[in-house]
Amino acid sequence: MTAPVSLIDSTGLAAALERFADERHWPRYHTPRNLVLALTGEVGELAEIFQWLTDDEAACLAEDPARFTHLQEEMADVLMYLVRLASVTGVDLDAAVRDKLVKNALKYPTP
Amino acid sequence: MTAPVSLIDSTGLAAALERFADERHWPRYHTPRNLVLALTGEVGELAEIFQWLTDDEAACLAEDPARFTHLQEEMADVLMYLVRLASVTGVDLDAAVRDKLVKNALKYPTP
Amino acid sequence: MTAPVSLIDSTGLAAALERFADERHWPRYHTPRNLVLALTGEVGELAEIFQWLTDDEAACLAEDPARFTHLQEEMADVLMYLVRLASVTGVDLDAAVRDKLVKNALKYPTP
Amino acid sequence: MTAPVSLIDSTGLAAALERFADERHWPRYHTPRNLVLALTGEVGELAEIFQWLTDDEAACLAEDPARFTHLQEEMADVLMYLVRLASVTGVDLDAAVRDKLVKNALKYPTP
Repeated sequence: MTAPVSLIDSTGLAAALERFADERHWPRYHTPRNLVLALTGEVGELAEIFQWLTDDEAACLAEDPARFTHLQEEMADVLMYLVRLASVTGVDLDAAVRDKLVKNALKYPTP
Repeated sequence: MTAPVSLIDSTGLAAALERFADERHWPRYHTPRNLVLALTGEVGELAEIFQWLTDDEAACLAEDPARFTHLQEEMADVLMYLVRLASVTGVDLDAAVRDKLVKNALKYPTP
Repeated sequence: MTAPVSLIDSTGLAAALERFADERHWPRYHTPRNLVLALTGEVGELAEIFQWLTDDEAACLAEDPARFTHLQEEMADVLMYLVRLASVTGVDLDAAVRDKLVKNALKYPTP
Repeated sequence: MTAPVSLIDSTGLAAALERFADERHWPRYHTPRNLVLALTGEVGELAEIFQWLTDDEAACLAEDPARFTHLQEEMADVLMYLVRLASVTGVDLDAAVRDKLVKNALKYPTP
């Protein structure tokens, strides 16, 4: 019997975020509900990048350095709050996506 | 000179999601704007889990197996759409979070 | 001096929602943070309606009765949580939109 | 037979927003999907106001004039995009909330 293949490894990021929070005495603010609200805020900022773009413009964001940097920052913020939420709620993100992929494969069989 | 330390490795998940989409002829639907709307939908489902909970109840979600499974699923959905969005827009999530952590460290110096 | 023109009158809806909540002993759940999370959940459901649609399909939603009813329901949910949030936080929505329109007119002068 | 009681009248706001958009040649940007993304962005800004507040602090927002003004502005933005979305999709918000209240009353009978 072999260990399941890992699809995502966020242990380094989780540790970096925990240390970052600890050094600033932030853990008391990092409750699950606070982090979900913060995640919502960052997803809103991500949506703002795309709100007035055509599909063609959105597909070419990488060609506009300023906008692309902004996109990277907002995606980083979403990811960091999601990984932090996983830490404080005890969710194993790698196991979570492996389980969900199996469920999705059953729900959406290949044609 | 050494390579920067990786904080998150999502290459396996990105590849699995691409294969999953390819097998179902979904890539034409996976435009950046569609994925942002789908991400918003999943963050909404994540928020619904927490909307009527007290902070104490939210901190103990892991003790309620049904709710915890639901939480894992919604967090997996958010993560999968975020990783898929990174793939189609060309964002390197690991580089993005490393850059953002440096910016955050400058913005919020330790006390 | 004349009273400012009302742009939106939601007093009837606010009263109906308050009575609805009172009859079910829900006011203790209707804290500002809970209502913001619930609002996020409903906006997520609204986004889901549009996530895989082309702009042309989205523009013709009224021609699909089932989808249009779904759209009406989700927009109603968003509006009801917003009006309820205004009630519990003491925000006068009519005054708020009048003030914001003035600010927007200064920010975006006509060409 | 009498007309149903109106719960919300947003006709003045809808007309003001249409005129505002027309004067700036914005209607081509006000597609349903763009407005849903913009609405998501504003809900994110609303969530940011509450993300680090305790329930007690959130309940006293009206006592902090700067924060309360910010709250009013973000709620106005959410409402304005919602009313604009209703206009471009043809949704009658008053009918929508009346229908939804009837459904909710059947779904959640009084104790």
